[in-house]
Amino acid sequence: MLITTNKWLIKNGTFAVLTEDKPVIRGYMLIENDRITYIGEERPKLDEQITEFDGKGLFFLPGLINTHGHVAMSLLRGYGDDLALQVWLQEKMWPMEAKFTGEDVYWGSALSVLEMLKGGTTTFLDMYDHMNQVAKVVEQSGMRAVLTRGVIGLCSPDVQKQKLDEATAFAKDWNGKADGRITTMISPHAPYTCPPDYIEKFVQVAHDLNLPIHTHMSETKAEVEQNVKDYGLRPVAHLQKLGVFSRPTLVAHAVHLTDEEIEILAANGVAVSHNPGSNLKLASGIARVPELLKAGVTVSLGTDGPASNNNLDMFEEMRLAALIHKGATGDPLAIPAMEALRMGTEYGAKSLFLEGVGSLSAGMKADFIAINMDQPHLLPHTDFISHAVYSASSKDVEHVWVDGKQVIKHGECLTLDEERIRREAQAAFEGLLARS
Amino acid sequence: MLITTNKWLIKNGTFAVLTEDKPVIRGYMLIENDRITYIGEERPKLDEQITEFDGKGLFFLPGLINTHGHVAMSLLRGYGDDLALQVWLQEKMWPMEAKFTGEDVYWGSALSVLEMLKGGTTTFLDMYDHMNQVAKVVEQSGMRAVLTRGVIGLCSPDVQKQKLDEATAFAKDWNGKADGRITTMISPHAPYTCPPDYIEKFVQVAHDLNLPIHTHMSETKAEVEQNVKDYGLRPVAHLQKLGVFSRPTLVAHAVHLTDEEIEILAANGVAVSHNPGSNLKLASGIARVPELLKAGVTVSLGTDGPASNNNLDMFEEMRLAALIHKGATGDPLAIPAMEALRMGTEYGAKSLFLEGVGSLSAGMKADFIAINMDQPHLLPHTDFISHAVYSASSKDVEHVWVDGKQVIKHGECLTLDEERIRREAQAAFEGLLARS
Repeated sequence: MLITTNKWLIKNGTFAVLTEDKPVIRGYMLIENDRITYIGEERPKLDEQITEFDGKGLFFLPGLINTHGHVAMSLLRGYGDDLALQVWLQEKMWPMEAKFTGEDVYWGSALSVLEMLKGGTTTFLDMYDHMNQVAKVVEQSGMRAVLTRGVIGLCSPDVQKQKLDEATAFAKDWNGKADGRITTMISPHAPYTCPPDYIEKFVQVAHDLNLPIHTHMSETKAEVEQNVKDYGLRPVAHLQKLGVFSRPTLVAHAVHLTDEEIEILAANGVAVSHNPGSNLKLASGIARVPELLKAGVTVSLGTDGPASNNNLDMFEEMRLAALIHKGATGDPLAIPAMEALRMGTEYGAKSLFLEGVGSLSAGMKADFIAINMDQPHLLPHTDFISHAVYSASSKDVEHVWVDGKQVIKHGECLTLDEERIRREAQAAFEGLLARS
Repeated sequence: MLITTNKWLIKNGTFAVLTEDKPVIRGYMLIENDRITYIGEERPKLDEQITEFDGKGLFFLPGLINTHGHVAMSLLRGYGDDLALQVWLQEKMWPMEAKFTGEDVYWGSALSVLEMLKGGTTTFLDMYDHMNQVAKVVEQSGMRAVLTRGVIGLCSPDVQKQKLDEATAFAKDWNGKADGRITTMISPHAPYTCPPDYIEKFVQVAHDLNLPIHTHMSETKAEVEQNVKDYGLRPVAHLQKLGVFSRPTLVAHAVHLTDEEIEILAANGVAVSHNPGSNLKLASGIARVPELLKAGVTVSLGTDGPASNNNLDMFEEMRLAALIHKGATGDPLAIPAMEALRMGTEYGAKSLFLEGVGSLSAGMKADFIAINMDQPHLLPHTDFISHAVYSASSKDVEHVWVDGKQVIKHGECLTLDEERIRREAQAAFEGLLARS
């Protein structure tokens, strides 16, 4: 049944509350409008008759939060894989991206939003161009998003100014829109694609609009070395010097860090979006996530663009985060399942500077998902947290709610026209090829 | 429709033939009884009226081949994760496994066979105890399997003899059974769990029965060091000295190898079952797979037991193999998608010394799967090999055939009673807990 009242109760559910002493409880969750107003083992006392949803066999988790991506790049998924990085970028990605129209971005984003919602992601960050189109998709889909125009500054002062103005206008126009589901950030693309004085202008805009900053940082070893060569500083000190960390900041990747840089990030409250799938596929390396977490840095998870991942399955990112750091450090306790799940939810919300999102507890936004646990690969029912991280996939997601509204029901999207999106996305890719 | 004739044609299909010049073709595949008799872009000339299967929207791949596991351990999936290895083994796994009855092994294996078939695996190797029960499940399920009683020799000579006799009898009784779908191997568990003279007895039995040998080797650094301490040799030289490599041999893991050891494996035609998921989760390390492949060693993929993985998703193992070696070596071309797919299919068959399995071509056994490509995460249709390895999961498998017979149809198993298996596996786990 589709819940149409604004107050309803889930019974017989199993819930990932992720508290230290009891991470999983069986019981009840009450939803009123866009909020969770009760969660617990006892049935809440209610005066009125209430709509009930039977949660038997379902495991309820906070909606997953994808903290770094360029979702319209789904149109280039699988286009030119297994090439050296520079060949892939220069001969495949950039020429095609240069041809992207607003409509391409719309259909690519719609394809990705569909994939993410069906896979249990309820919030994503997107840094790209034609952001009005991405915002439109978010508005229609019912999803939550943090949107930001990513600006590459390797151009004339005039074009730089135009791009900055555009990024500023977008951030201003869309912040708080779609019933508050959309917030915005300010994004100079990266230290190696934006001159220092240009980055300083973004910092000023972020101050003026009271918005956080998002940027790529230290993804590859080569880019770190180039930064030292060009500016005499590694990227962390460079960004600090330019004032970036005077704003709430989320950096993507942060693969190549020294101990000192980890300390600076921790001291400045800079959050990190760890993108394990993309970092492995592009051979960027393995980020020092256990050390970052130990230093107190908020580390969340991102898929990066679907052309370098090649999907938007946050279960896979949680699993990769839980697995690769064990393998790389030799410590089987490096990132336990519960920590990986927090990286995919609670720490995601924190990384995006979102209040009231990222966990299942009274007072939080009703962004949550249900996975069907009665499947061979999720049996026997030993440890649901472990199963969610080590065994499940995005295809196990049965239902998804955002802001208290159901957007996925038995795997079907209720807000977007899946068949049309699939057709249009394929056509958009073929159109890009034809315009070669 | 369920095909009931013994000669039928797939039309409008897209097929992973994996040849260098044209890895994917669109066209036709003809199946007669248990064999593929034609595959090509042109419709085959046929005199008679023939049953046709419309392959539109489906991508046909060789059935995936899982070359190392202990599938009954699914009963312990998620039981005691995120513990140090020795604590996990000594306090969780071993005490529970000691209580396993034949019935537990039956239901645990049935749960795993169900998971594997639904996920597109058509052949698996299993090394465990109570192997008659595993064989029974294989026979009923229609799956293909290489089965072997894994023997730990840290016991009295009497018990050693009894175990060896049992392993020998099992290998003799079941080789070639279930219409030839079951073959067998001889398995001393590992150099560190079997004294040298005991391993030599297994070599003799393998010669007598003309069977290959399967064993664990060099999974952890500690076990390699112990081998040097106990026998003055690293495991590869040790096994070579004991005559193991005089038989066709498949070793599981092989994480810690020197250049010289890689040469010995190559020179002796020893195949390696690479288990990336398990090696990461148990923090064993990252095997030198690119070097092994370069040296000419046949490297295939295994899930290992579902308690250390924690699923039997061979798509995930292919993806991990394709990803982690890029990240670990810094080379984005380390293991391309096509090589990962071959590791999961063709090289798997070669590792198990199976003829006529592992690829889609005329004359091969009709073991194949179809994945539904018309889904958001598998669009646009750029490169199907890339999509299968980097984007797909076991849940995308729509149909599965083994030996020309359909065993999975629209995700449902036609040969096993899924609901009963799910119930019995859960009950078996609860029974093990209750017998604590």
